[in-house]
Amino acid sequence: MAKEENEEEEMSMELPKELGVSKAANFSVWYNRIIQLADLIEKRYNVAGMFVWKPYGFRIMNQIKKLWDKLFVESSIQETYFPLIVPLEYAQMNKAWFDGFEDEVFWVKGRGEGEPTHILRPTGEPAMYPIFTMWIRSYKDLPLRIYETVSSFRYETKHTRPLIRDREITFWYEIHTAHTTKEESEKELKEHMRINDLIWDALAIPNIKVEKPQWEVFPGAIGAIEYYNIMPNGRMLENGSCNNLGQAYAKKFNITYVDENNQDQYVWQTCTGNGARYLVAALALHGDDKGLILPPRIAPIQVIIIPIFKENIEEVLPTCKEIAENLSKENIPVKIDDVDKTPGEKFYIWEIKGVPLRLEIGPKEVKEHFVTAVRRDLGKRQKVEMKDLTLKVAMLLEQVQNNLYLKVQKFYDEVVFETDKYTEMKAKINEGGVALVYWCQGEDCADEIQRIEGVEIVGITLDDETTGDCIICGKSSGKKTYVARTY
Amino acid sequence: MAKEENEEEEMSMELPKELGVSKAANFSVWYNRIIQLADLIEKRYNVAGMFVWKPYGFRIMNQIKKLWDKLFVESSIQETYFPLIVPLEYAQMNKAWFDGFEDEVFWVKGRGEGEPTHILRPTGEPAMYPIFTMWIRSYKDLPLRIYETVSSFRYETKHTRPLIRDREITFWYEIHTAHTTKEESEKELKEHMRINDLIWDALAIPNIKVEKPQWEVFPGAIGAIEYYNIMPNGRMLENGSCNNLGQAYAKKFNITYVDENNQDQYVWQTCTGNGARYLVAALALHGDDKGLILPPRIAPIQVIIIPIFKENIEEVLPTCKEIAENLSKENIPVKIDDVDKTPGEKFYIWEIKGVPLRLEIGPKEVKEHFVTAVRRDLGKRQKVEMKDLTLKVAMLLEQVQNNLYLKVQKFYDEVVFETDKYTEMKAKINEGGVALVYWCQGEDCADEIQRIEGVEIVGITLDDETTGDCIICGKSSGKKTYVARTY
Repeated sequence: MAKEENEEEEMSMELPKELGVSKAANFSVWYNRIIQLADLIEKRYNVAGMFVWKPYGFRIMNQIKKLWDKLFVESSIQETYFPLIVPLEYAQMNKAWFDGFEDEVFWVKGRGEGEPTHILRPTGEPAMYPIFTMWIRSYKDLPLRIYETVSSFRYETKHTRPLIRDREITFWYEIHTAHTTKEESEKELKEHMRINDLIWDALAIPNIKVEKPQWEVFPGAIGAIEYYNIMPNGRMLENGSCNNLGQAYAKKFNITYVDENNQDQYVWQTCTGNGARYLVAALALHGDDKGLILPPRIAPIQVIIIPIFKENIEEVLPTCKEIAENLSKENIPVKIDDVDKTPGEKFYIWEIKGVPLRLEIGPKEVKEHFVTAVRRDLGKRQKVEMKDLTLKVAMLLEQVQNNLYLKVQKFYDEVVFETDKYTEMKAKINEGGVALVYWCQGEDCADEIQRIEGVEIVGITLDDETTGDCIICGKSSGKKTYVARTY
Repeated sequence: MAKEENEEEEMSMELPKELGVSKAANFSVWYNRIIQLADLIEKRYNVAGMFVWKPYGFRIMNQIKKLWDKLFVESSIQETYFPLIVPLEYAQMNKAWFDGFEDEVFWVKGRGEGEPTHILRPTGEPAMYPIFTMWIRSYKDLPLRIYETVSSFRYETKHTRPLIRDREITFWYEIHTAHTTKEESEKELKEHMRINDLIWDALAIPNIKVEKPQWEVFPGAIGAIEYYNIMPNGRMLENGSCNNLGQAYAKKFNITYVDENNQDQYVWQTCTGNGARYLVAALALHGDDKGLILPPRIAPIQVIIIPIFKENIEEVLPTCKEIAENLSKENIPVKIDDVDKTPGEKFYIWEIKGVPLRLEIGPKEVKEHFVTAVRRDLGKRQKVEMKDLTLKVAMLLEQVQNNLYLKVQKFYDEVVFETDKYTEMKAKINEGGVALVYWCQGEDCADEIQRIEGVEIVGITLDDETTGDCIICGKSSGKKTYVARTY
């Protein structure tokens, strides 16, 4: 298969034994190293843009998946699975969609067959919507609210980055819904946003939601809300989209229902999707120069216990086990690291892997009935009395969760700036800032802004409803808009 | 893509509104209808051998998957994910393997590219084992014990049957392990069998394990244990295999480790796999002419509550809700069916869907503090006092679980016969029986047995260690062997 275009990053160099790079100084290299050093993924699989989920990475990602499964099911959105292979006749029902993807799909065929007539799904629509026409007959079949978590495939020509831009997009969920009215579909999208906000809370990341400019919305659709993060290098990363499809797809795929007056009507649709980028945000925003810092709510191991002893682990192991048992009973995932390594080596490994809380238990601790606790985000030792240890551990974990959130909020507050001057906007974005400026929503003004190399109109913030003078044309109908470099 | 060969079954006829077919009289048609009528799958997806998992089917299958996830994790087998697309250079490392699959793989390529150089994985080995060579360096890296649950792809030329033989094989797990010694790998396989036995218990199906004839084992491998079911039509269905690979793959992929004496050694490997056929067995063996009967342990809804009332559902709904709440508290999955249909219509639907226990609650029940309970497997109404209802429901569910197991055991006892006469063996197999006969393990004798059309040496039973005279040649070293028609 064709190789992808190359970029400045070290992608193929031998992996160093230590992180040895500052996240602030070179985020790309830091990210590339940490996902491997922390044993999240194996990059050496020999297909460009594809990688192996190693056990530890899989467990963290699966924690996030379990969270969305729980939230979707609680909201009565039902899980399904649609085939990975899509026949061309389905794919071409929406010609605009197909034209957009045609060069970026993988084609599939049997041995000795001629030109392929099937593709691997790049998104769920072409597999799902032909089936929607079978499932939806009458208003009684609505609303239809389903989701699937699958791999999707894009033959990316852009430079791939593990978990950010892959050719096999793993852990990808898509919610697809159909409704009788526009109002109902709008209510549905609010529900998807409510759920996404809860996921962002679990990731300890303040969520940024924007309304996309109209020209980035699918022709005929009503609009799209997208979630964004600001990466440590000041670039914004799209991280989930909630699409108000209106009747655009219904008309292409002919998804209709018979209403109460026996009239054929097109359905109103929404779709919302995201996946492994949730994890990217948590890794990138919380990690430091020692490694990952996992928010407790997505950490498969919340507490690592390190037995410390001179000669015989049995001096301390029974106490370690007792503590581990008590924590497990309270549903706090805990692990004792009793392998044959020095405490220093163990500290180092579990710091890289981002376990939020470390408990050190040595002879002194056993004798004096306390443990030494070290929060991964602070790195300072503190004595915790053995009595009420479980309760105190739970409190410490909550403090880590909250502190991580506040640190990201602080970073966002520092990096986002408001201005009404074009030159200031340009200068500060070039220094790694993210601009929040009034923009009139006109395409000419957008073009003017986007003439700055690599800079994009990200979208109109949902958090600020003030209006002001457009930073380009000065019209007073401007809305607060994020302008930044993006991924 | 090429159409598959056709068979006698109705595969494309319009689905009737009612089951209307006897499982005993025509199992194939019964199976084909019930998986659709019970809303498990959507067959009308327009790629041969692929189907859509509908919400109810997905939930049942996912119950089984959650069970294997739990059992694997408890056994410290770690979950991973390997890419779906495999480069030819990986696939061809084991030439014998590739030659076997070459005509049955889907080939993948980008638009405008020439002959494809990548395939969709038909099994995990060619994606995993090249990576094993990177992960395994020293004896300290062993044992390596991982699994993945994925879709696999076979471009089947045989007639496909949903969940039994698909071109996209969904919910497919594979455990792959590597060890320093043969003994350790044998112990590992026993662990996989212990886990599989537990899964079969949950499915309420007595497990049949056989040792496969040597010529069906991969060249160089040591042996294979396979699980089988006897379907209602007397055909045996392979349902899970545990493979003792020895060093066969290690030598092809060059998977070595440095031992404690600094010598290079090949690893010893096992692999074990299965998937949606677990569900097939539960559907096929427990269902009846009214529909499915789900073993409670895999039923996503164990108890369906039907409110019965003349004019106002409010007469009975509060009691229904109270009962549902109490059952939920005890982790018994329950649903109240309060849609606008008659009780008769609801009974009919939930019988098709196989919910193991129905509770009917009408004004009389509310007034006199009891409920009417109907076990799906017996179909008889019984009064259950409201006090201790939760405990009694739990007992009834356990009785269903046990009764289903015993019914299958009884069917197996009836259908399996022993004989030392060739003509009797042939006649009874032709009447739908399964033979258990002594066989000397010689290929000539096997050929003689397999001259009976469609009949196969399934494998040597693990439950009976007696020896006897081979049914063909009369040699006294024969072992008890299943001989039957198979899928």
